[in-house]
Amino acid sequence: MESRSAHVLLSLLVLAASGGLAFAGEDIAQLRDRALASNQAWPILESLTTEVGARPVGSAGMSRAKDWAISKFTALGFSNVHLESFTKENAWVRGFESAMVLTNNPHSLAVTGLGNSVSTPPGGIEAEVVVFQTFWDLINATPGSLNGKIVLVNQPMVRTQNEDGYRSAVRARTEGPSIAADRGAAAYLTRSITASDAALPHTGLTRYAAASPRIPAAALAVPDAEFVARLAARAPVRMRIILQSRVIPAAPAWNVVGEIKGRETPDEIVLIGGHLDSWDLSESASDDGAGVAITMAAAALVGAAPRHPRRTIRVVLWGSEETEGSGAAYAAAHRDEALKIVLAAESDFGAGHAYRLALPRADPADPRIAELGAALAPLKVFVSADPARSGGSDVEPLRVAGVPVASFNQDQSGYFDRHHSADDTLARIDRADLDQTVAAWAVLIYSVAENDIDFRATMSSEAK
Amino acid sequence: MESRSAHVLLSLLVLAASGGLAFAGEDIAQLRDRALASNQAWPILESLTTEVGARPVGSAGMSRAKDWAISKFTALGFSNVHLESFTKENAWVRGFESAMVLTNNPHSLAVTGLGNSVSTPPGGIEAEVVVFQTFWDLINATPGSLNGKIVLVNQPMVRTQNEDGYRSAVRARTEGPSIAADRGAAAYLTRSITASDAALPHTGLTRYAAASPRIPAAALAVPDAEFVARLAARAPVRMRIILQSRVIPAAPAWNVVGEIKGRETPDEIVLIGGHLDSWDLSESASDDGAGVAITMAAAALVGAAPRHPRRTIRVVLWGSEETEGSGAAYAAAHRDEALKIVLAAESDFGAGHAYRLALPRADPADPRIAELGAALAPLKVFVSADPARSGGSDVEPLRVAGVPVASFNQDQSGYFDRHHSADDTLARIDRADLDQTVAAWAVLIYSVAENDIDFRATMSSEAK
Repeated sequence: MESRSAHVLLSLLVLAASGGLAFAGEDIAQLRDRALASNQAWPILESLTTEVGARPVGSAGMSRAKDWAISKFTALGFSNVHLESFTKENAWVRGFESAMVLTNNPHSLAVTGLGNSVSTPPGGIEAEVVVFQTFWDLINATPGSLNGKIVLVNQPMVRTQNEDGYRSAVRARTEGPSIAADRGAAAYLTRSITASDAALPHTGLTRYAAASPRIPAAALAVPDAEFVARLAARAPVRMRIILQSRVIPAAPAWNVVGEIKGRETPDEIVLIGGHLDSWDLSESASDDGAGVAITMAAAALVGAAPRHPRRTIRVVLWGSEETEGSGAAYAAAHRDEALKIVLAAESDFGAGHAYRLALPRADPADPRIAELGAALAPLKVFVSADPARSGGSDVEPLRVAGVPVASFNQDQSGYFDRHHSADDTLARIDRADLDQTVAAWAVLIYSVAENDIDFRATMSSEAK
Repeated sequence: MESRSAHVLLSLLVLAASGGLAFAGEDIAQLRDRALASNQAWPILESLTTEVGARPVGSAGMSRAKDWAISKFTALGFSNVHLESFTKENAWVRGFESAMVLTNNPHSLAVTGLGNSVSTPPGGIEAEVVVFQTFWDLINATPGSLNGKIVLVNQPMVRTQNEDGYRSAVRARTEGPSIAADRGAAAYLTRSITASDAALPHTGLTRYAAASPRIPAAALAVPDAEFVARLAARAPVRMRIILQSRVIPAAPAWNVVGEIKGRETPDEIVLIGGHLDSWDLSESASDDGAGVAITMAAAALVGAAPRHPRRTIRVVLWGSEETEGSGAAYAAAHRDEALKIVLAAESDFGAGHAYRLALPRADPADPRIAELGAALAPLKVFVSADPARSGGSDVEPLRVAGVPVASFNQDQSGYFDRHHSADDTLARIDRADLDQTVAAWAVLIYSVAENDIDFRATMSSEAK
């Protein structure tokens, strides 16, 4: 409630006040207020979710998505619009899935296989369930103690405004199956990695340890995981789960690129973007349709200014974030260009309002940082005293190669309620929050592309 | 909604399940569940807010508070209950205050003087207002440009789950007056440091720079600051403000101490507490009645276990946090004991539910840390991968002296709506959140007091 009206009022207030007092960074303030009133990202997101839908790497949806991106970049006036192809090995494709409690009153549970999971036999696996209330309790289980069992880890996720609650909880999904397999388990279930108690399961990647047996792995909806745990606390519970999937050994994949060419030093790059691929359970409006729309819109707004900024703004729509591969492919293909990238950042935090900007390590007394801070403050975004830990998973390989990264925190309090589930739909998107986030991104990329700030100097002295 | 029922259900679930599977740290889990069901902190907080009320250092309320604390510690079964006296120099006492817009339709504004502010002349200061939309814009104002003016900084605070939004915004209060004075201002106003738009002003400390002229300084309620800013964007605005206050050159002050004596190594101390002093605008239930009640209750619960833990748990109720002094006095008096303090932490984040524990730098694979993590997980509290930056302002001098510190983040999304204002009342306290936070603290202090973990070893190797 507060965010919507307050943002707009503040914007008008700043517009009104700018006639009176000198305002540092007049151009940035004008761009910000134009972005805030633009409704630029919404139609992009509406188009992607309506015309393309789900778009896992290797799917027909992803192929449609790359065509959509080329056409959208072009319509928005970007230059140098092109595809960069790479191969995604072992693209995972979901098949038939079912999970059922056989004890007491047999009934079906809301289940979804984890990305990379191997299949059960066609008839499934039937076994007794062992429930662990926390991931630590699973780790403490002794080898052999879970022989032939279906393991369920029922640890709740902590709701946080940033991604820290998710980061802490997600090990149950990414590492759990191999830990359970090492102790003899036949199959693995995790409570969905979400703080929501909605009856929908949440998928996501798992990673098998090289030396561990590969067992089928899935997530139960939170209320179903709690139900099984309650039942198992009373008497032994038997379940049957069927998880079918296949892999495409070498799927075609694409990063899609568009640019706002710099007017003075076009070979210096401010690189932003969202990921075009998604999970398969929904139209994936928040993850990461929002990041695609926000960064395309912010760059297009800067491109529509009376003149382009000095440096080039490059938008990369990443083609395989969810199951990994697009960031590594890009960094490998652009190894020689890395030193020309002055800043990289991925928008992959959903569609909530931005509230915090973490920059590469920089001097807070630098007047250019102060100008950026002043332009963001009326949007209710502060510049963090702590530097960015990461710029997003697709720019991580660039960061490792020495590229400075930044990160906008957006309010993720409700993001993981929908993340990787059937509920990640356009209906959940707030247009005013989207505009506010676009305005924040436009301020950042304009500031870094127009002025002579060079985070690379700070980075290299750090590395020494 | 979710937090309350889920916490209780989880608790029961864990109790039910513990009969089946081995649960790491059985004793900790039992303590946690006893704490969760104890309603132990609420009556302490109800007593403090009802019987004592506001308790700024130097006031009769603070004198009542120290007597209350001695009596409450004793009633709760603490040992070694005593006062540690110190002198608070220049304790600040609010006097008559008023602020009025004289332009257009003259009317009063909701104003409160900042702690440490000098007084205006008895008749006040009347001058034109200069509004800055951000703190950076004030910094950019040139010397002499504000001669004789009343300055208003109207920068909004960003709402965050932790204290980062506040930390970023509060410079307008702590540093603003001297920056404005250096540029010629006659008086200083800040928009209240809050994300609330309620019509109540929020006080708090300001710090004058040694070389700057000292000008009277106050905070306006958010809607009043916005109103003045809107008015000033149209035409020059004149205001009159009266701010009266006095200082007590040497006020008596007290830290109040109670202990749960360790059964094996009583000279090793786990030191926790909240601050007993408060601002003067309310009964100060959240800041920091909650911290007082939470830490007294958690320690009392541990003390009521069948046997005391190995190490001593010491609760220190700090006597001058808001205007500084209690932490420094304690560290000075206990200099020789600092190396015996195995962990120090202050509860000063309000009464929202705990969601994150930051420890001193520690090995996440340490089974004692894993046990702590497993005991906290069902409370929906995760152990952060990042170490604690601070343990609270009163234990900061101990941290500087080498004492390891920890910090529980509590949900502060709504905390700063009430913080330092007349709205910080018992009516805003959620009992279930209080119980959950007490349970989290009880788990932490029991774990560290009972096992042989020694964060001091990690700290000293860090310092080398």
